[in-house]
Order: sequence, then structure tokens, then C-alpha cells
Amino acid sequence: MNDTFLKACRGEKTDFTPIWIMRQAGRYLPEYQKVRGKVDFLTLCKTPELAAEVTIQPIDILKVDAAILFSDILIPVEAMGMPLEFHEKKGPVLAPAIRDENTVKKLSVPDPEDKMRFVMDTIRILRKELADRVPLIGFSGAPFTTATYMIEGGTSKTFLNTKRMIFQSPELYSALMDKITSTITEYLKAQINAGAQAVQLFDTWGGIFSPQDFKAYALSYVKKIIHDIRKWQKAEKSEPVPIIYFVGETAGLLEEIKESGADVHGVDWRINLDDAIRRLGNNAVVQGNLDPIALFLPQNKIEERVKDILSRAASAKGHIFNLGHGVVPETQPDNVIALVEMVHRHSKR
Amino acid sequence: MNDTFLKACRGEKTDFTPIWIMRQAGRYLPEYQKVRGKVDFLTLCKTPELAAEVTIQPIDILKVDAAILFSDILIPVEAMGMPLEFHEKKGPVLAPAIRDENTVKKLSVPDPEDKMRFVMDTIRILRKELADRVPLIGFSGAPFTTATYMIEGGTSKTFLNTKRMIFQSPELYSALMDKITSTITEYLKAQINAGAQAVQLFDTWGGIFSPQDFKAYALSYVKKIIHDIRKWQKAEKSEPVPIIYFVGETAGLLEEIKESGADVHGVDWRINLDDAIRRLGNNAVVQGNLDPIALFLPQNKIEERVKDILSRAASAKGHIFNLGHGVVPETQPDNVIALVEMVHRHSKR
Repeated sequence: MNDTFLKACRGEKTDFTPIWIMRQAGRYLPEYQKVRGKVDFLTLCKTPELAAEVTIQPIDILKVDAAILFSDILIPVEAMGMPLEFHEKKGPVLAPAIRDENTVKKLSVPDPEDKMRFVMDTIRILRKELADRVPLIGFSGAPFTTATYMIEGGTSKTFLNTKRMIFQSPELYSALMDKITSTITEYLKAQINAGAQAVQLFDTWGGIFSPQDFKAYALSYVKKIIHDIRKWQKAEKSEPVPIIYFVGETAGLLEEIKESGADVHGVDWRINLDDAIRRLGNNAVVQGNLDPIALFLPQNKIEERVKDILSRAASAKGHIFNLGHGVVPETQPDNVIALVEMVHRHSKR
Repeated sequence: MNDTFLKACRGEKTDFTPIWIMRQAGRYLPEYQKVRGKVDFLTLCKTPELAAEVTIQPIDILKVDAAILFSDILIPVEAMGMPLEFHEKKGPVLAPAIRDENTVKKLSVPDPEDKMRFVMDTIRILRKELADRVPLIGFSGAPFTTATYMIEGGTSKTFLNTKRMIFQSPELYSALMDKITSTITEYLKAQINAGAQAVQLFDTWGGIFSPQDFKAYALSYVKKIIHDIRKWQKAEKSEPVPIIYFVGETAGLLEEIKESGADVHGVDWRINLDDAIRRLGNNAVVQGNLDPIALFLPQNKIEERVKDILSRAASAKGHIFNLGHGVVPETQPDNVIALVEMVHRHSKR
């Protein structure tokens, strides 16, 4: 078994730097497009055999060192009782948006094995089909990032409604976040029970905050989730599963982020990785941080950047190579294949 | 004359901390809406009497310590030969977008007193009407941020076309940037000649880069502009005009930004101001950095944040209070008026 990814998460010595890629199962792959051509996006997420199939594709094609469950961060939101639709141009639409006490009250904290059983089924299929070739990562949106979609009713550029609720109706925000946090905690526990060998919390929009607001309105809920999962694992006497915390724009927030309690911290490309490690502390295990658009460079230039990131990562206790954000649909698969090979070759110890 | 703003720019001692607000002349003000109701946005920019009128409104209403020319960062782009339109929902549209050698070749480096005379006329009117009550700030988009609009054909979320050009056709990008940089240099010189007492370069989208790319593809052109303006002022033996450099997301880039040569560095709200000052060096003069959406807080909470920012700014050589980005249209004018009063009161020395 290639358990290099798990070893790196735990800060153990590895023979090479493991790599996986955010959105590695996705639209840039013709093999994914072929499956996606048969069903719409939500149906793909909810059909365990198909979701497992596209999850495994990048393991075969790219030779990455971990698989990540194919799903969407809005699955738990739908399970909480908000109707979810995906529009080709607008992206996700959640209506009606959460703006008052009444809409918050209507939300439930779902039993994941009931309302999101298809996710756990996908994980169970994957553990069988992967047959320990590489570890399987489960995931969820972090509470704040999940809340933005619920409050805005979809994606947003300015997050005005979300911040307005936080600043003008903090009790309402807090009530909403309590429900989201419980939902995500149970959801991640269920994923771990089903076989996820690591989990990542995506706080894609966490970077819109000042440090003090990030701490109060995003990080505190992440800390609670991580604390609860650890406590539960201790009680169950089960092997601790590494937890990765990814924030979209980390550069101003690292002093706060390092208090998350996560085993691994995702770092985006807008900061030099050695600076990030210095600020997180040299005991940090980091994941990142190539600019996704750098995959449009000629391969010899991609290689220079790979070497640069690997050398900057030398001061960390552990390093998992990744992009600083998801791979974009226009990316050439050949460059992604080349990236994985370069990371493996240049990090060989 | 209230020259507190200019003194702070030069790092001189002031009796209180000066404040102005990005987009202080804008849609959140009913007085602005009244003028804007008569003409469309571009006509407002191009009618010196009206542009001067809305520039002065926030001086009377808010009691800020500087006026900033009412205009748009795309004015020089239109003057270079790209047709510009503003759509109510989509925002600015520039067509056809710059994607190849041919479209770059067609662009000119305009004589600002010819193609953008209305801007200089606005400045000349303003200097008379302001009668030295407060200093007048001129501005331009920085070259990279200006280029994104030209390459994307408008605003963008991912800036994929821009980065793709940079990574795949660096010579084309460089040819485009040379024309933009010359245009902006001449434009700022003309503004200074017409009476601008400080100028700000807006690099709103500079934060999408890794530090190495920011340095190569955004900062290098800003450095050239600042260097050329200084040289020109020396040759003309004129009083040096403070230059402010504002980047949208500074947190990962401060070590690069501090090399810009600007007198003042704008800092956004996603980093604590004392951290930013430490990284820019204690000789830094900084401008910022309240989250614009913090203006939706109750006034007693706004006041806490004002005091916090003022105390964090204590280590800087100079501080100009501002938001970390433009004020949003939904903001209550009363809260902005209160903000200005709080900054003045709590910073009184």
C-alpha cells in the first residue's frame, strides 16, 4: 500500500513527497466528461457507483498518492432541508436564502446515514475498489463557507448578506452556525465510520475576513468540529484520522489558523510556502501550494516551480504537495500528469 | 488649510490621524445619486463640472481630510483606443478583448491633455473650488489591474485569460504592459501638472498572484512609473507629490510591495495593521484598513474597531485612516459620518 500521504499527514518521514490535487476528479479530464455526459452533476454525486468511478480515475491517470471522495460541499446543506439546484451558468442555487429566524428554525440536523447515505455508500465502494492502493480522503465544507452559500442563496462576490448577518444579527448567525456545525460533525464522523482515512475541511471563503472576525466567525466552529471528532475517536478507541484544514486565502490569517487543531494546514499560492511554515511553526504539516493557473506554463517552467516549492517546504515537519486551489477545467491533463511525476522525481529521498 | 493628509503621507507629525475613504464619492450618498440621476456614469466622469461637484460632496458631508478625483480606472483604457461601455448588471465591457499581437498593436499611448482633457479640467476646477480646504488626490489603475480589464474584456472572477497570457505569451503581455505603463505615467504627470496634490495607484487585483509573479508581472511596472515620475519631478524641480500604492490583497505580498518606491502603502483588512507595518518596516507610512462591511456594525462596535486600528497603527511612521477597499453602495451615510468623527476624536494628540 502507498501510505505516503498518511505518513506525511502524521509528520512521519516519507520516501518522497506525496501529492494529490484539489478537484483532481473533474471537468479537465475527458474520462470524467464521459461519465458526466450520461447524468447531471447532482445525480453523479448521488450515484455511488458513478461517484466511485470518477473518484478512482485520477489515481489511474495521474498516479496521485490519495483519492478524494467525489461529492459537493452543498450535499449536507440539501440534507438540512434547503432545496439545491445546479445551473450551468449561475452555479448552485439554494432558495429561499437563509435570512431570518424562521428559515433557520426550519433547518434540521440530518442523520447522515439516512439523508446522505449515498456518500457513505460511495466511500464503502471506494475502500473495496481502491483495495488500499492509496488512502481515501473524505471532506466537507467548513461551517462558515457552507453558511455563505445558505445565506447568499448561492455563490457571491462580496458576501454582503453573510457579513451583514454576522455584524447586524450575530445571534441569528450563531443559531445557524450551531446547526451547520452539528451537521458537519456528524457527517464527518459518518464518513470516517464508512472508511474515510483522512478528512479535509474546505473553508474556501474564510479569507474574506479580518483576523479577528475569522477567529470569531469561522475558526471557532472548525475548532469545535475537530475537538469533537478527536473526543469521539478517543471514546471509540479508534485510530486517529488526519484532519486537513484548507482556507482559501491564508496569508493574513496564519497566526489564527495554526490554532485550528488540524493535523495538516492547506496553504494557497498567494504566499511563499516557507513564510507560511515559519508563521505556522516548524512543527507544521502543510499542504500546497502551486497556483492552479501555473499548470498553463510550459512544462520546464512548471518544473522550476515544483523545485522551488519543494525546497521551500524543507523546513516543515511534513509536506503534501497540492495546488493552492482546485484545478480549473481548461487545464491540459498532460501537464497535471507531468506535475505528479515531477513532484515524485524531485522529492525522492 | 487642512494639510494633515499630506503631512501624514510625508511621515511628518500630525495633530490627528487624517482619513479619507475609497469611493467616498459614490452611490451610498443620496447627494451623489441625485447628480447621477441626470446623466449616465461615463457622462458624469466626462463632465468636469459634475465630476467636480460629486468629488466635493464627501468633503462637505463627511468632513474627510482629502478629496479624491471622481473618475474611473478605465478612462485611460478608452483613451488608448478600446471602446468602453458600462452595463447596469455586467459592469464595464471592453470589446474586443486584447488577446493577440494585432489588438495590442492597435492601442495607442494617448496624449492625456488631448484624449483625457476632461479629467485635467475636473482637477483644475476642483483646485479652484476646494480653495485649499483639503488636498486633492488624483489616481489611476496600476498597469496590471488595468490590463486585466483589457484582456478579460471586463471584470473577472478567475482572471484565467490574463494569467494564461502571462504564462503562455509573456512577450505579448510585456508589449501590452509597456503601452499601458507609458499611458499611465503620462496620465499621472498630467494630473499632477493640472493640480493633483497626491496620486494613488490602484492595484485592486494584484492579490491574485504568488509573490514571485506579483513581483514580475505587476510590481515591476509600478516601480517603473514611480521611478519615472520622481525623475520628471526632479528635472522640473517641482515639489514631490506623494504617491500611494494600493493592492487589493496585500497579506502575502508585503515583502514585495515595500519595494514599490511609493510614499504610502495601502493595506486591506485581511491582515492586522501592526503585522503589516512590521513587515513593511517601521519607516512605513500606511493607509487603511477597516473592513468596508464593518460599517454595517452598530456604531459602538465601529468605534471599538477604530480604536483598535489606531492603536495598531502606532508603530508606523505615518498613518492615513481608510477602509481596506471601497465603501459599498448599501452603506448608511450616517455610519460613514460617524466613522470620520471617531477617527478624528480618538486620534487627537
